[in-house]
Amino acid sequence: MLRNEFRAVRQRSLQLAAPLSNEDCCAQSMPDASPVKWHLAHTTWFFETFILEAREAGFRPFHGAFRMLFNSYYNGVGSMHPRAQRGLLTRPSLDEVRAYRVDVDARMLRLFDAAAPDAALAGLVRLGLQHEQQHQELMLTDVKHLLAHNPIAPRYDGDAMMPDAVPLGLEFIEFDGGLVEIGHDGRGFCFDNELPRHSSYVAPFTLASRLVTNGEYLAFIEAGGYREPRLWLAEGWDKVAAGELAAPLYWRRRPDGSWIEFTLHGELPLDPARPVAHVSLYEADAYARWRDARLPTETEWEFAARLTGIEAGRLHPGAAVETGPTQMFGACWQWTSSSYAPYPGYLPTPGTIGEYNGKFMVNQYVLRGSSCATPEGHARASYRNFFPAGARWQFAGIRLAR
Amino acid sequence: MLRNEFRAVRQRSLQLAAPLSNEDCCAQSMPDASPVKWHLAHTTWFFETFILEAREAGFRPFHGAFRMLFNSYYNGVGSMHPRAQRGLLTRPSLDEVRAYRVDVDARMLRLFDAAAPDAALAGLVRLGLQHEQQHQELMLTDVKHLLAHNPIAPRYDGDAMMPDAVPLGLEFIEFDGGLVEIGHDGRGFCFDNELPRHSSYVAPFTLASRLVTNGEYLAFIEAGGYREPRLWLAEGWDKVAAGELAAPLYWRRRPDGSWIEFTLHGELPLDPARPVAHVSLYEADAYARWRDARLPTETEWEFAARLTGIEAGRLHPGAAVETGPTQMFGACWQWTSSSYAPYPGYLPTPGTIGEYNGKFMVNQYVLRGSSCATPEGHARASYRNFFPAGARWQFAGIRLAR
Amino acid sequence: MLRNEFRAVRQRSLQLAAPLSNEDCCAQSMPDASPVKWHLAHTTWFFETFILEAREAGFRPFHGAFRMLFNSYYNGVGSMHPRAQRGLLTRPSLDEVRAYRVDVDARMLRLFDAAAPDAALAGLVRLGLQHEQQHQELMLTDVKHLLAHNPIAPRYDGDAMMPDAVPLGLEFIEFDGGLVEIGHDGRGFCFDNELPRHSSYVAPFTLASRLVTNGEYLAFIEAGGYREPRLWLAEGWDKVAAGELAAPLYWRRRPDGSWIEFTLHGELPLDPARPVAHVSLYEADAYARWRDARLPTETEWEFAARLTGIEAGRLHPGAAVETGPTQMFGACWQWTSSSYAPYPGYLPTPGTIGEYNGKFMVNQYVLRGSSCATPEGHARASYRNFFPAGARWQFAGIRLAR
Amino acid sequence: MLRNEFRAVRQRSLQLAAPLSNEDCCAQSMPDASPVKWHLAHTTWFFETFILEAREAGFRPFHGAFRMLFNSYYNGVGSMHPRAQRGLLTRPSLDEVRAYRVDVDARMLRLFDAAAPDAALAGLVRLGLQHEQQHQELMLTDVKHLLAHNPIAPRYDGDAMMPDAVPLGLEFIEFDGGLVEIGHDGRGFCFDNELPRHSSYVAPFTLASRLVTNGEYLAFIEAGGYREPRLWLAEGWDKVAAGELAAPLYWRRRPDGSWIEFTLHGELPLDPARPVAHVSLYEADAYARWRDARLPTETEWEFAARLTGIEAGRLHPGAAVETGPTQMFGACWQWTSSSYAPYPGYLPTPGTIGEYNGKFMVNQYVLRGSSCATPEGHARASYRNFFPAGARWQFAGIRLAR
Repeated sequence: MLRNEFRAVRQRSLQLAAPLSNEDCCAQSMPDASPVKWHLAHTTWFFETFILEAREAGFRPFHGAFRMLFNSYYNGVGSMHPRAQRGLLTRPSLDEVRAYRVDVDARMLRLFDAAAPDAALAGLVRLGLQHEQQHQELMLTDVKHLLAHNPIAPRYDGDAMMPDAVPLGLEFIEFDGGLVEIGHDGRGFCFDNELPRHSSYVAPFTLASRLVTNGEYLAFIEAGGYREPRLWLAEGWDKVAAGELAAPLYWRRRPDGSWIEFTLHGELPLDPARPVAHVSLYEADAYARWRDARLPTETEWEFAARLTGIEAGRLHPGAAVETGPTQMFGACWQWTSSSYAPYPGYLPTPGTIGEYNGKFMVNQYVLRGSSCATPEGHARASYRNFFPAGARWQFAGIRLAR
Repeated sequence: MLRNEFRAVRQRSLQLAAPLSNEDCCAQSMPDASPVKWHLAHTTWFFETFILEAREAGFRPFHGAFRMLFNSYYNGVGSMHPRAQRGLLTRPSLDEVRAYRVDVDARMLRLFDAAAPDAALAGLVRLGLQHEQQHQELMLTDVKHLLAHNPIAPRYDGDAMMPDAVPLGLEFIEFDGGLVEIGHDGRGFCFDNELPRHSSYVAPFTLASRLVTNGEYLAFIEAGGYREPRLWLAEGWDKVAAGELAAPLYWRRRPDGSWIEFTLHGELPLDPARPVAHVSLYEADAYARWRDARLPTETEWEFAARLTGIEAGRLHPGAAVETGPTQMFGACWQWTSSSYAPYPGYLPTPGTIGEYNGKFMVNQYVLRGSSCATPEGHARASYRNFFPAGARWQFAGIRLAR
Repeated sequence: MLRNEFRAVRQRSLQLAAPLSNEDCCAQSMPDASPVKWHLAHTTWFFETFILEAREAGFRPFHGAFRMLFNSYYNGVGSMHPRAQRGLLTRPSLDEVRAYRVDVDARMLRLFDAAAPDAALAGLVRLGLQHEQQHQELMLTDVKHLLAHNPIAPRYDGDAMMPDAVPLGLEFIEFDGGLVEIGHDGRGFCFDNELPRHSSYVAPFTLASRLVTNGEYLAFIEAGGYREPRLWLAEGWDKVAAGELAAPLYWRRRPDGSWIEFTLHGELPLDPARPVAHVSLYEADAYARWRDARLPTETEWEFAARLTGIEAGRLHPGAAVETGPTQMFGACWQWTSSSYAPYPGYLPTPGTIGEYNGKFMVNQYVLRGSSCATPEGHARASYRNFFPAGARWQFAGIRLAR
Repeated sequence: MLRNEFRAVRQRSLQLAAPLSNEDCCAQSMPDASPVKWHLAHTTWFFETFILEAREAGFRPFHGAFRMLFNSYYNGVGSMHPRAQRGLLTRPSLDEVRAYRVDVDARMLRLFDAAAPDAALAGLVRLGLQHEQQHQELMLTDVKHLLAHNPIAPRYDGDAMMPDAVPLGLEFIEFDGGLVEIGHDGRGFCFDNELPRHSSYVAPFTLASRLVTNGEYLAFIEAGGYREPRLWLAEGWDKVAAGELAAPLYWRRRPDGSWIEFTLHGELPLDPARPVAHVSLYEADAYARWRDARLPTETEWEFAARLTGIEAGRLHPGAAVETGPTQMFGACWQWTSSSYAPYPGYLPTPGTIGEYNGKFMVNQYVLRGSSCATPEGHARASYRNFFPAGARWQFAGIRLAR
């Protein structure tokens, strides 16, 4: 079972890289976005460093330099290659990284064969697989960011994508709130930041039945939303005034005034039915204010999400088609107004692996749900994703609350 | 009554500037810190713009350019002088700004004379006075920052300050928590960000009986606290690694290894009994982790503060001398782990004056209590001060929780 | 004689500061521009450090910290206050700096009384006085830069300034060139960078009879000079494209399209007859190219300047009114195409004072002549002024050559 | 003949890229260094844009986007891809760029076949080939810079390189100077910046018989050369004080104190016999001052170079082995004290191609000679190479003068 999960997740990473050239896999478009090759290697490094090094008899690293080259941010492991220079690692080649994967996979499988994995090992393996799934989403968002910098607008996926059906009207669904239990309920895997489950008081609130669409967001632009300082957080307005924010990240205005959107399927006419994506928290917040609404807190979101199912992933968010609170998963991550902070009583995992989450709990905001780029099986109602308020290269959209 | 309050608060600002030369009042040491002259003018501008302009018959501004020169950040009022260039305003002179104050004060008093202030006017006047008290604290912290840049270490206050008494040991006081009411209770003035009063669930917690002292913080430094990445938030460690954080802002190490602290009374040997001040949230958080503790949330802090009295202000924080939760007020502001966010149901004041608080609710952290630089009568248990995690020029200290 | 020169030059600095407030004298508008108070102190420091310290019996510094505070860039003297923080020195006050001047002047005069100055002392005193004259020009250009940042556009000099007479047409005067002697001829004072006198070959050339006027430069702007990349050096075009260069530094366009110029006499309608000033080398070079001309080399300029007289200084450049090569001195410094480099056989003055010139001989360009802000008696044909190509706050104008 | 030159030069570029992977050819390590793939495409673009577009019947570009993608800096051609983002062009692939070369080469050869090239065409072709040779040198220096950022220190050339023979002592050879002719003499190709030939007066001088060696430069480091401000130009010292300059670019100190040098043959122990390379003008100038010498002017260098032969290229500079002024060519470019400026009477080539040289004539310094990376047949005595004073990634070394 664990063995099959391991094979499936590991295989999936290679599939995601398959449409890309060696060069596509090597380049880095900004410090926050890593090369696909680096993702392939780093997820492998995770298994080699945190599992094989401790449990493999006669452990020898695949390559002496990889411990440093593919360490992301674990000070406990030692020094690391500078993040902004990951794109300069033309060596090892993609083939060598693939060989690294083959080698570590084989050693992991031998470990599984040697003895039935104990709970600690199984836990670490599942953590490694969930970690790899996070990087699978980043592979897509990072390569999208890279390809978007290329004036010839290459496609990641050559399949055509049609305009989506017109979604239902946006409604606000009422929730009673009260003293609720928040955090992971202990069934299945979770990250340490989803724990401990704890009580929280929520006042009555309403939540939008679906995400804000491109068409709705375009109306905000056309109404002068980016020219009215009263709608914006002061930090956001500074970015607007400096010309850094003028439309969602991948929207481009043609000379004739029409809009196109760069997607993993290439440049397409802006589809008014699909949810707006690639906005910052500043834009999500300003849009909500324009609608006399606000963003939900993460507590409100999680409380509401318990009632909804989880949809499957695609490469671009689809329009909302059902009634009820839809698009909670599988379309766009949803900015909340909650800063990323530890739950009451939070304890990081002991040891070096405890650097996974806790040390990032400042100046970031929680996004909830999942996106069209999130691997199947990775989403859950208690999941806490987090990014700085200005980050736009993720599939981040807007769900309104009041 | 309002008239007396008005006179007292307005007079206090001038008293604070009295020990300073014209040059001291004009210079600006960083974009975040404004010249004293600018504070004197801006607080006056507040009354002229938000009260006289609407209510004075035949209103004419004292000077046509002041509307722009002394606007801090109100887009609704129009354009504003660039914040980083406030120190270049050698004209108007300090004498002209004093004349501006005299003129506006006289017009305000005439307004009071003309008719008993209605509730709206009284509310605006009290807002203006509380606003001026905030700037009184900034006058002290900003001029301290300025004087600290001068190698000859000038004193703001020539009086000597002696080492303080040894404080009692630090104890953790237990609180039961539960569903509590948070926010201002409606008695007396409050800012819009303290409203609405609302329910919040607090798990049981303990809170330190006093602030962390210089002596305790020095032990952290000597134990290598600034060399151990596992203690730090990732953003904080980046600053430590870049050499930006190595000790509290105004601590200086002598060649013989002893420490001195720059204060408004000049450079003094570090007093181990007084509370550590001028630390960032990153340092407060790292110190707490080193002590197997954490910072309180603002809810916990407010819940505990309801039980304690408010102490009087001084120019440098004093040592703790009582039992119980002491130093809640009047020594140092206390970093909380809570990011600055609207309370559930928060509504900014309508109109331009509504830019006062709401638009800053991102990427800032709440500090609670008050400091030795806070004017008398300005502190209260529901007060929410806020600064970016890296800000150190305020009297910000550390209260531990668990 | 030396005594009288000393008194006159020292007195002149105080006269230049007389129209300014304490605050005007303290503020610093950019790292390259120093506060007037700092100039007053630094020029005094020069005499104290380089003369009194070596020659005064029982030398004791006026103030122990001044050696560091008012050191500009002499590593040989020891550490120095950071250049960009000169404006934060609200202490010592202007009065204390004046007292510093009185004290050092008295000690210098006692030195003169004690014995007739030997040649070495006389040389150092003259160097100190020429150095102070350089700073007298900087006092005017630096305070102009400061006042220009003030939206109320204060005047340094309250006298009115009228439009100037229409100048004669611009003609190109022919020079034969040949093998010429360049550099100071040994009569009177010179800086080390004007030596040694040496041979240089100059091809025949022509030089414009006067400086380019505001009116002529305005025609360049109106013809789209700032929109045509082919006119510009690549570095200059980068600045144009980034919006950093769009007109001379102190030109401002009114909403009605007319131009005004900020001067030491306040804001005035642009006078088409006066020479254009406050342009960068990039602008001078682009303008010359637009006129099918070029900037002269410093050798050409010096060769031509031997034939012309020296005009008196004012606070804003006047129009050209004579025939022949006019405005060589007393209007605007004139950008040459020559980078600032040592003359063949150049030897810096031995000792710390040798840091005066040599270490700046990279990435700067030579300006020749003098300006309306240059003190009388300071200009000469062999004088080499120098600034980076982008510097605009000096009275720098354009003389064409072909 | 032209046809053979064309084929040979074009072929050479591909040979230089042969040892590199697709990823090596795509990455960009800094804005000043371009990817090898970009060099291969840009040199092809030069022929397509400046020759085929004007002369090919029924011209159609190979790819519509390449005109913009591979334009380096010709504003006259239109917009261009941002220089700092050349490494993000993962598409077109290296194979497509190779196909671009094949296509343009075939079209160029058809042009040669159609009619004997007239003088204008032949001139343009030769310019294009010399241009390509410049980029061949950059391909090596740029890829060296890239590989140097990789902690696994990949080799461009797998061949071993042995320590070189001990060079002869450094002597200063006397030259009489006088009125000399400088600039290209009209025999064979030259760039426009080598013209017009003109007279210049040179005082008598001496020039070092060979370049400064690694061993000699190491002595400068060990003597504290990087700790003594009096040796440095002020700009250089600022970089030393900021930690940006501490040894030649590719020198690395081992924990045991010994030095290694990263070369295109990989990391090697520092060879004291070989010339020091990869130093800035600041370092060259400081070293010269330490030796009581100076850098030559470009006039002195060219005057001396007329007497010496041209040596063949290698991938790392070799030690000096002859008497007389050796290593004038083929080892390291040699910093001169001359800023890059137009010769008297300089006229850029008319039209867009005139952007080739003239617009860079500010804030750069001339290097003379050639390096081990310069293609055979590209060097000549009148050649003027130029880089900013801080550039270190070229093979730039030090020849002393007095």
